[in-house]
Amino acid sequence: MSSGFSTIDGGSATSPGGFTAAAAHAGLKADGALDVALLVSATSCATAGAFTKNALRAAPVIYDAQFLSERPGRVRAVAMNARVANACTGAAGLEAARAMARCAEEAAGLPPRTALVLSTGVIGAPLPVDKVERGLRAAAAKLSPEGGADAARAIMTTDTRPKHCAVRLETPAGPVTIGGMAKGAGMIHPDMATLLAVLTTDAVSEPGTLRSFWKHVVDRTFNAISVDGDTSTNDTVLLLANGQAGVDPSRDGATWKLFEEAVTAVARTLALAIVADGEGATKRLEIQIVGAQTEAHAREVGRAIARSTLVKTAIYGGDPNWGRVLAAAGVAGVALVAERITLQAGSDGGAEGWLTLASGGATALADPKQARAIFEQKAIRLRLDLGLGRAEAVVWTCDLSPDYVRINSDYTS
Amino acid sequence: MSSGFSTIDGGSATSPGGFTAAAAHAGLKADGALDVALLVSATSCATAGAFTKNALRAAPVIYDAQFLSERPGRVRAVAMNARVANACTGAAGLEAARAMARCAEEAAGLPPRTALVLSTGVIGAPLPVDKVERGLRAAAAKLSPEGGADAARAIMTTDTRPKHCAVRLETPAGPVTIGGMAKGAGMIHPDMATLLAVLTTDAVSEPGTLRSFWKHVVDRTFNAISVDGDTSTNDTVLLLANGQAGVDPSRDGATWKLFEEAVTAVARTLALAIVADGEGATKRLEIQIVGAQTEAHAREVGRAIARSTLVKTAIYGGDPNWGRVLAAAGVAGVALVAERITLQAGSDGGAEGWLTLASGGATALADPKQARAIFEQKAIRLRLDLGLGRAEAVVWTCDLSPDYVRINSDYTS
Repeated sequence: MSSGFSTIDGGSATSPGGFTAAAAHAGLKADGALDVALLVSATSCATAGAFTKNALRAAPVIYDAQFLSERPGRVRAVAMNARVANACTGAAGLEAARAMARCAEEAAGLPPRTALVLSTGVIGAPLPVDKVERGLRAAAAKLSPEGGADAARAIMTTDTRPKHCAVRLETPAGPVTIGGMAKGAGMIHPDMATLLAVLTTDAVSEPGTLRSFWKHVVDRTFNAISVDGDTSTNDTVLLLANGQAGVDPSRDGATWKLFEEAVTAVARTLALAIVADGEGATKRLEIQIVGAQTEAHAREVGRAIARSTLVKTAIYGGDPNWGRVLAAAGVAGVALVAERITLQAGSDGGAEGWLTLASGGATALADPKQARAIFEQKAIRLRLDLGLGRAEAVVWTCDLSPDYVRINSDYTS
Repeated sequence: MSSGFSTIDGGSATSPGGFTAAAAHAGLKADGALDVALLVSATSCATAGAFTKNALRAAPVIYDAQFLSERPGRVRAVAMNARVANACTGAAGLEAARAMARCAEEAAGLPPRTALVLSTGVIGAPLPVDKVERGLRAAAAKLSPEGGADAARAIMTTDTRPKHCAVRLETPAGPVTIGGMAKGAGMIHPDMATLLAVLTTDAVSEPGTLRSFWKHVVDRTFNAISVDGDTSTNDTVLLLANGQAGVDPSRDGATWKLFEEAVTAVARTLALAIVADGEGATKRLEIQIVGAQTEAHAREVGRAIARSTLVKTAIYGGDPNWGRVLAAAGVAGVALVAERITLQAGSDGGAEGWLTLASGGATALADPKQARAIFEQKAIRLRLDLGLGRAEAVVWTCDLSPDYVRINSDYTS
């Protein structure tokens, strides 16, 4: 990561001061693996949330969004479970989310209405509340500042690796730590994905300050990744600030900027870990859109490319089929001028520079062998200059492999 | 097909009076297969076109759209080629499209500016104009009323079967014939797809009459199918009416309605043939959306379900993961009320009726064994009642199999 802050080896959501966590096996996953987790703060947290834009919000999303609109400064805990998403479950589902929150509050000895809830897994199945409650009580009994990694493991579904990290930031007023955990393997697409993430910090902050700051960070990280173009009912990304470090980074401009960079670094690390762990993924694709009229246009074009199954299968096959990239850009709903477009490719790291594939409406500029050599890399970068303005955005995705189909063709049973 | 008109065995775009066609091998496909085709009418045709909404329109689309805005009553021929789409090819591509049209006109002895052009295949490669012209001249030399099937074969890319059909309609003023041909296997999604279709009729009509009529038909047929959610640069669907039957079906309301049904039947037959031949497809899914506030809403919800790779992989696996259907409906950008939604499943034909999977916000209503028995069928129907109004739409798609990935992972070479 960048200078100004340093990565904490094995860091997690419990790296910042005052956070504890634990996980338990509650019988939701068949193999005895951890499937319920509890994260607790020693004091109330200012909290910002970003939620799915799916019209059918899962019960935990409805519960948390309502909670944060009413009590954004009162969060003490986050209760989590994997395997069952508690989505499309109606009034009973909302009652189950409430019960899950209440159980977490009681088990951790917290005041009423201080816990948020996160669920992920099968959509449309009822939440086995008894099991989840048993798991939360077991977790509450062993809360620890070392519990962050276990919590990250508990929320995995088709993830093959737990995802957590933390950084330490030195400020003139003293150190601040930012940590986080996330899950998400398939069904990942901006706004958002079966993507759960909880970032924590011991910085001092206010809900109002955090809210716009968090949207800005999420747009450039979790909302800039795509695995399969599907948008989940459950996506939730939270940022909790408990103030235990006694440092308010918003007090001076330079520190606030450094804090934003550090939070963005944690969010990007988790987001890229999700892409790298995409269901069946064998390659990573970074899509840089430059020369757009607005950042929103740039992001929409990048997303349209990231969503294209034809681009993703070509990336899987190492096939430099760049016409598909242009065709995919054309469906973004953004006006394009073919003659102004330049498309380049490079391998990640990119010390050897960019190879121009198409420019000014003419294609097939590059030596096909050189192009294939780039597309056969494990990490590929595309740079599409729209030639229309100065705004830019970066979107990350992975390839689409036969394994994706295998993983998703029989998920419920 | 329905009563009032009858299917013509082996019918094609040359079944209506006054149409001839032929195809040739011009060296574009590697295996000596037909790859260039020419369709000619004995007299000028009133013509309506529907084109891709991709922001990067291929040269033939730009050429044809311009042509039809200026001379919609003057079409005499359609020149077609497979293997190279002449898309994202700039000014040179547009000149190549012009040259292709001119060559067709000269070879068939037609007046200047009377031919439309259709191309399909790799995006971003220059059109080998010399080869295409040689093919068009060879085709022009053997135009025949029996050539429709060969023309349909010539425009195939990853299609495994040629797609053509025709119907004969008896009207009080005499018989009218409607025929057609189409191609499209992957990259198929509404508005539109690497989908080329040419429908022909010997009915008398005017361009102005045909235009709105054709949009109505296309919305319910070619724009109601999805293979992989990708939208091509080249999609074009044409309707040519040459008047050789001497019957104007718009003269009385009942005949006009029957004519619409017959044209819709031809378009639907071709559209469903495309879905059945989707790259790697093993199953067909029909999605009925009812109870919407507007037909546009119904179609958007149906398309969102048809686009979901998670729904399509579940269909491939015979997995009754109906939560994914609801989650996919939620990304359509249409406001939904979870408590009003009912989701049912049935097998195609559906004599055994509907099985309710979710209703009023409650899911998991059905016996999982019964549900799985339906999802394991080759043809599956879903019926989603939004409970918000009286509008409806039907969308068709296919499953996503590992073969789709195999076919598309190395297409250019």
